[in-house]
Amino acid sequence: MNPKIEKLIKQFAKLPRVGNRAARRIVLGLLQDKTGRIEKLVDALVDANENIYPCPICGVLTDKNTDCCEYCRDMARANGMLCLVRDLSDVWVLEKSGVFNGRYHILGGLLSGVAGITPDDLNMGNLQSRIANEKITEIIFALPNTVEGKTTQQYIISTLGDTNVTFSELASGVPLGGDLDYIDDGTLSLAFGGRRTL
Amino acid sequence: MNPKIEKLIKQFAKLPRVGNRAARRIVLGLLQDKTGRIEKLVDALVDANENIYPCPICGVLTDKNTDCCEYCRDMARANGMLCLVRDLSDVWVLEKSGVFNGRYHILGGLLSGVAGITPDDLNMGNLQSRIANEKITEIIFALPNTVEGKTTQQYIISTLGDTNVTFSELASGVPLGGDLDYIDDGTLSLAFGGRRTL
Repeated sequence: MNPKIEKLIKQFAKLPRVGNRAARRIVLGLLQDKTGRIEKLVDALVDANENIYPCPICGVLTDKNTDCCEYCRDMARANGMLCLVRDLSDVWVLEKSGVFNGRYHILGGLLSGVAGITPDDLNMGNLQSRIANEKITEIIFALPNTVEGKTTQQYIISTLGDTNVTFSELASGVPLGGDLDYIDDGTLSLAFGGRRTL
Repeated sequence: MNPKIEKLIKQFAKLPRVGNRAARRIVLGLLQDKTGRIEKLVDALVDANENIYPCPICGVLTDKNTDCCEYCRDMARANGMLCLVRDLSDVWVLEKSGVFNGRYHILGGLLSGVAGITPDDLNMGNLQSRIANEKITEIIFALPNTVEGKTTQQYIISTLGDTNVTFSELASGVPLGGDLDYIDDGTLSLAFGGRRTL
């Protein structure tokens, strides 16, 4: 195979969720395309690479020519609620659902002995000052419902110490449309523990 | 979502075998990467886009600074055998298997009324001259075992008319390790029709 093509395939195969076979298909499709798809892809890549940076307040990736991201700029979102998430993709999921209209804070990871992620790796240096500056009254933990998620949550609560902030977490339980037959014991146990009186 | 990021995700989602969700993962991975993966990908894309063209003889994508591709250059491959394939990916598959060591000819498609592919769309203008120039004695059709594949094959044979070339096609039958339980009736019928005396 031509070394230039092989190199390009290798670069694509390194991307998440793209295997070798898919990378070959992608490269072949791009090289045989006559509508300038490579140029468009290159332009978008270069543009994003040069002009995107993490918002210094919350960590959401945003334009470099702005002081902060669209959420931190939006005064309508200054409602005292701060949603802590692991990753930008979680912000996208929440925004798509429209369930939350406050501000975000991206941790960039979860405490994990296995993955070697310590408190220093988390983006939480300015959390204390955000609570004061933005008059935060409630911090909602929207972290994965896993041991790492709960550990991180507990760690952050203990670090923040004495504050007047209410802490909350997403409810655990049976998902909408969930059939009890297909739900694991852990979820069932949480759903029972958190049962609501009707 | 930031418009630059959204644009990049859209470009990735257009690639074959990449959906919206995978495109989001890819873009997030790239933007959060700190090892210069975007630069490497852009370099490989630009390099391939600027320096790759289809070999004027056989259609294999190759370096622009060469007259023809590595297969057409390789005199060891001038063994009188010419393998007709639909696409470059078929060449890669055959090369990986090592079953063929002659030269290739990429048609770039198969005759299809549904897809609107006519003989003019096929890369076969120089097929007649290749047979003479390269002293081809056998043309092997390695086209998909479909109606379109067989129609194209028949069309090419009739177009070439009176030649001293032997035409052959890949054998049809039960694949290696194939369980009769899982094989369709068409394949079974072909396998029975082409049964070998032991």
